[in-house]
Amino acid sequence: MHALAFDVGGTKIAAGLCDDEDRIIHRWRIPTPHDPADIDAAIAGIYREAKGLCESGGTVGASGGTADSADRSGIGSIGISACGNVTSDRRTMSFAPNIAAWHDYPLADTVEAAIGHECPVMVENDANCAGWGEYVHGAGRGSAYMVLLTVGTGLGGAIIADGKLYRGAFGMAGELGHVAMVPDGDFCGCGLRGCAERYISGNALERFARSAVRRYPDRAGRLMELCGGNVDHLRGAMIAQAVKEGDSLAQYAFDKIGEWLGRVMAQASAVLDPELYVIGGGVVEVGDVLLGPARRNFDRFLEAGAHRPHARIVAAEAGQDAGLIGAANLSRQVTAG
Amino acid sequence: MHALAFDVGGTKIAAGLCDDEDRIIHRWRIPTPHDPADIDAAIAGIYREAKGLCESGGTVGASGGTADSADRSGIGSIGISACGNVTSDRRTMSFAPNIAAWHDYPLADTVEAAIGHECPVMVENDANCAGWGEYVHGAGRGSAYMVLLTVGTGLGGAIIADGKLYRGAFGMAGELGHVAMVPDGDFCGCGLRGCAERYISGNALERFARSAVRRYPDRAGRLMELCGGNVDHLRGAMIAQAVKEGDSLAQYAFDKIGEWLGRVMAQASAVLDPELYVIGGGVVEVGDVLLGPARRNFDRFLEAGAHRPHARIVAAEAGQDAGLIGAANLSRQVTAG
Amino acid sequence: MHALAFDVGGTKIAAGLCDDEDRIIHRWRIPTPHDPADIDAAIAGIYREAKGLCESGGTVGASGGTADSADRSGIGSIGISACGNVTSDRRTMSFAPNIAAWHDYPLADTVEAAIGHECPVMVENDANCAGWGEYVHGAGRGSAYMVLLTVGTGLGGAIIADGKLYRGAFGMAGELGHVAMVPDGDFCGCGLRGCAERYISGNALERFARSAVRRYPDRAGRLMELCGGNVDHLRGAMIAQAVKEGDSLAQYAFDKIGEWLGRVMAQASAVLDPELYVIGGGVVEVGDVLLGPARRNFDRFLEAGAHRPHARIVAAEAGQDAGLIGAANLSRQVTAG
Amino acid sequence: MHALAFDVGGTKIAAGLCDDEDRIIHRWRIPTPHDPADIDAAIAGIYREAKGLCESGGTVGASGGTADSADRSGIGSIGISACGNVTSDRRTMSFAPNIAAWHDYPLADTVEAAIGHECPVMVENDANCAGWGEYVHGAGRGSAYMVLLTVGTGLGGAIIADGKLYRGAFGMAGELGHVAMVPDGDFCGCGLRGCAERYISGNALERFARSAVRRYPDRAGRLMELCGGNVDHLRGAMIAQAVKEGDSLAQYAFDKIGEWLGRVMAQASAVLDPELYVIGGGVVEVGDVLLGPARRNFDRFLEAGAHRPHARIVAAEAGQDAGLIGAANLSRQVTAG
Repeated sequence: MHALAFDVGGTKIAAGLCDDEDRIIHRWRIPTPHDPADIDAAIAGIYREAKGLCESGGTVGASGGTADSADRSGIGSIGISACGNVTSDRRTMSFAPNIAAWHDYPLADTVEAAIGHECPVMVENDANCAGWGEYVHGAGRGSAYMVLLTVGTGLGGAIIADGKLYRGAFGMAGELGHVAMVPDGDFCGCGLRGCAERYISGNALERFARSAVRRYPDRAGRLMELCGGNVDHLRGAMIAQAVKEGDSLAQYAFDKIGEWLGRVMAQASAVLDPELYVIGGGVVEVGDVLLGPARRNFDRFLEAGAHRPHARIVAAEAGQDAGLIGAANLSRQVTAG
Repeated sequence: MHALAFDVGGTKIAAGLCDDEDRIIHRWRIPTPHDPADIDAAIAGIYREAKGLCESGGTVGASGGTADSADRSGIGSIGISACGNVTSDRRTMSFAPNIAAWHDYPLADTVEAAIGHECPVMVENDANCAGWGEYVHGAGRGSAYMVLLTVGTGLGGAIIADGKLYRGAFGMAGELGHVAMVPDGDFCGCGLRGCAERYISGNALERFARSAVRRYPDRAGRLMELCGGNVDHLRGAMIAQAVKEGDSLAQYAFDKIGEWLGRVMAQASAVLDPELYVIGGGVVEVGDVLLGPARRNFDRFLEAGAHRPHARIVAAEAGQDAGLIGAANLSRQVTAG
Repeated sequence: MHALAFDVGGTKIAAGLCDDEDRIIHRWRIPTPHDPADIDAAIAGIYREAKGLCESGGTVGASGGTADSADRSGIGSIGISACGNVTSDRRTMSFAPNIAAWHDYPLADTVEAAIGHECPVMVENDANCAGWGEYVHGAGRGSAYMVLLTVGTGLGGAIIADGKLYRGAFGMAGELGHVAMVPDGDFCGCGLRGCAERYISGNALERFARSAVRRYPDRAGRLMELCGGNVDHLRGAMIAQAVKEGDSLAQYAFDKIGEWLGRVMAQASAVLDPELYVIGGGVVEVGDVLLGPARRNFDRFLEAGAHRPHARIVAAEAGQDAGLIGAANLSRQVTAG
Repeated sequence: MHALAFDVGGTKIAAGLCDDEDRIIHRWRIPTPHDPADIDAAIAGIYREAKGLCESGGTVGASGGTADSADRSGIGSIGISACGNVTSDRRTMSFAPNIAAWHDYPLADTVEAAIGHECPVMVENDANCAGWGEYVHGAGRGSAYMVLLTVGTGLGGAIIADGKLYRGAFGMAGELGHVAMVPDGDFCGCGLRGCAERYISGNALERFARSAVRRYPDRAGRLMELCGGNVDHLRGAMIAQAVKEGDSLAQYAFDKIGEWLGRVMAQASAVLDPELYVIGGGVVEVGDVLLGPARRNFDRFLEAGAHRPHARIVAAEAGQDAGLIGAANLSRQVTAG
């Protein structure tokens, strides 16, 4: 049976039709409509296209299917990976920072209505979907106690415990981006101060790099060149470019977010004690430039570090597809349960 | 079937013979021997006494038993609640801060040998045992996602997730006393700085109160009277006494540990999202003097507090027996499994 | 003898012709030109107008002058209060955050050249001028050890020691806005983190208020009304308006900057031990709404507070004229020296 | 004319008879009596001995004197360097942490009475005396804006401004050991938290080293050997010994206090902008082991570091005599004034 997965962010909706082994066999990508009813309608539109693909057999080749697989080729479930807080029944968006109208919005209900109740819909937080995707088909395979951290615009987190997605009592667990790292620290958009994502994210990378440029103008030649002479235009990709060239200020910026990444993992281990951390998100593309300082500082700050095994820290494997893959897989579980 | 539970700390060993509903029907209390072999022997000695009690029927009345219960009155398992780190198979002490020789010490093996392998032995961290005790027979009944925090000399933690004790990959989960609250904060005995237990514990209560006495000698009359004029002799019980009398500096000290208790719970909720916090340990005897500021600061620092249910925060019910009760109950599970 | 004073900021130049008792008898206000040579020329233009006023006797009435005063009515010195770092000889701008071309710019030389060397020019940091203005003609009169803090867009500072402006070895003393209050705290435009002005300034007031609106939407009605429903448009004047109406979130924002203001003064007293703090800048217009929490927290954090006199904390009196008055007065001293 | 200088600490009184160029020509050292009247008497006793030495000509040879110098060899003034807070008139101890009875104690009066009013007495804070000693006869010669930091049991500070000792309005200036470095940081004996001396002092060195031993037992062999296997017995001299041998944990401990020393100097420069820091106290005997990281971190945290001269950072020269030398010199000034 196929599963249809959506990844709904503030600016775009990605979708993937997945075969029964969670391989993405067809993809869509559209801008996120402003109105929630239009989001529902857009999802329903893609659903009808996907259904047509399944019925026409257009999906068989892609999944290397046979007559047997064709029999199983209908869409059995829809999984929506959503940027925001999801209620514990996985049906309602309680709050989404980038989609204001998703405030106590019954997304599973409205989408099910929009598709004529042809198949069940499950909604899950996007970081949770990505974490589950890495666990079932990525770097986390076989690690029953695993934590995903996605270092993107912000910092997302997901927890796998005893081989299951850990959601907490109210579906809000794993918000590692808002663990307080520094009392009275950097002002966070959530209204608190010192949250982890202020120190570990693409935004943080830019802030650390801009700070370095202002402090050490004599050493900032390459970064200033890359940003066209205006430090406010300095972006993560430029810093990643410079660090590959050996630029010391770019290295400083990665060292700092790596240091804080190590610190937040040490905090997480005091609570969760996982065997594995999987680091995802665009920033991890630099590999050991980030993971090196992250590992060193994890060791440095891990409580009782001399008297316990240390969790491994690896880069994610499923990349940007992790959310779709995880949403597809989870949607199957839910409808089976 | 009875279970025999031990609570082994740095200075004393408490033991309790528990009936099949985890009620303690006989108790022991001895000083902790210095040598680990002597600890094993002391446990075995109590085991033999307990076995004698069971065989003589001496336990029947206490548990309101009948002939039927007498049939079930043998000792089916031993549970040891130990102050230190326990391996994930619940058989070996990897490290114990107060019992130096318990370093990779196979406690379950040595005790089983000492009792002639008459019944199986399970070892678990003391805070975990207390947390489980509160979950099965105390304030946590019915709360599948619960966190215990024991505010004693230090700060212990235990996590209940989906109705099970959450132990992590290596048995080290729930060390909430060593979550880093303040980078470069107060020096902790664990070798790190700013650990939660430096701000939330009986020791912290004393440090905050002594600070207040030094800052505000004009208002310190009652506390100085209680400690005999030497602020270094000021103890938690005196501060608790003074706060009941309305002393403002004692109130300050409780406000501070309450504030930090609220902060660490807010941190824990970002990760674990439980529905309930149970606060145990000697310091919680003052009740709302501590829990009031703890609740206020939990609300103040909880991420997305306006968009989620807030966990309840209550005092523990099982008191000092929680560890024995939890160890007894867990030992039954393990041997059944 | 008259003195002509200028206050050069990033967006506007204010000027004042001062009589021999530092009273401003004529004023100018123009936008700050982009090019430094144009700034020089603009200053020279105002100088010629002022000279004309003096020669025409146009200044006599304003200062209640007589024939005698007319004799003394020429311009004896020019004082420039400049937003930026000034060398210790008070002649060169080493760095100005808002006027990029003022980088090792010999401002006194270029202005003296532009006015045909008709009178001497002194340059001083703007906070230092304001501090001196408050000392000679404002709230600081008679307090030989005084510190000025101006809570405006940022946080400026000036130190009076033994009745003289304390400038340090290199002219950079008194930068209290960049004392590190929080290690790893809020990112500062200077490239460091946790600087005092990130917590004590009009910008900080807005950040604290926006945080409160995000955390407590249920209580944010009045502030949201004032900012037209967009919290990013919330400005200091709206928060000041709301606090006068008793709004609790606006009060929170003032409490926070007041708390940090108290903390930074406690830090300053450990070093400087002044008898008086004068608080200036637009934010202080709310009076005790800010000064109340500032005083409480100064007392709370002052080292050895029970064993020393506590400095007084008062609002500035000379207001926005303090910089011009101070520049005028200082320019006289320098040329006399 | 000779000056007689005393350095009164909690455990011992050192005294030195100084010639007219502040050279110490005779020394005394006695335990500090418990009772303040006994301290007065002990000082008077040494005064009489010193006077006898002067009258007998016993001091001539030491200072290379001649008949002329004998004429000038009486004792013209007494300077007392005292561990505690001194009022601004330099006559009364307002508070001394280690001599409880010196609470509003008129020390200059009582000593003058004890010596029959034969010569005037000046009292000054011990760090101030040491700072002045370094300025007039040590590493600070010629630096009109200088800050002394003494890294001993605690952290003392003294400020030289425009060639004069800066005392503030109430005589309490220069308490750099109690600048708040970390909000909610390590508990300080003064009743506050996060004071600089908790991170920069001999005590801090020991705490950092003990932390490292606990965190990294595998690398702690040499330090454990030096402290006889009990980390609580680890002392500064052992850490200094180990660092000379290249021990990495000892290096860590010096790196940490060096880092914080750099940070507190960066803070001090934002306020005071001196041209020179002189680092005294027992801990500085390791030289660049401490001063290297101190200089690096000063540069790292100095505000506007790219746009200003950086103060020099050097070791003290006058050593333990700085306090006596400074007290002698200051006492002459006061009596002359």
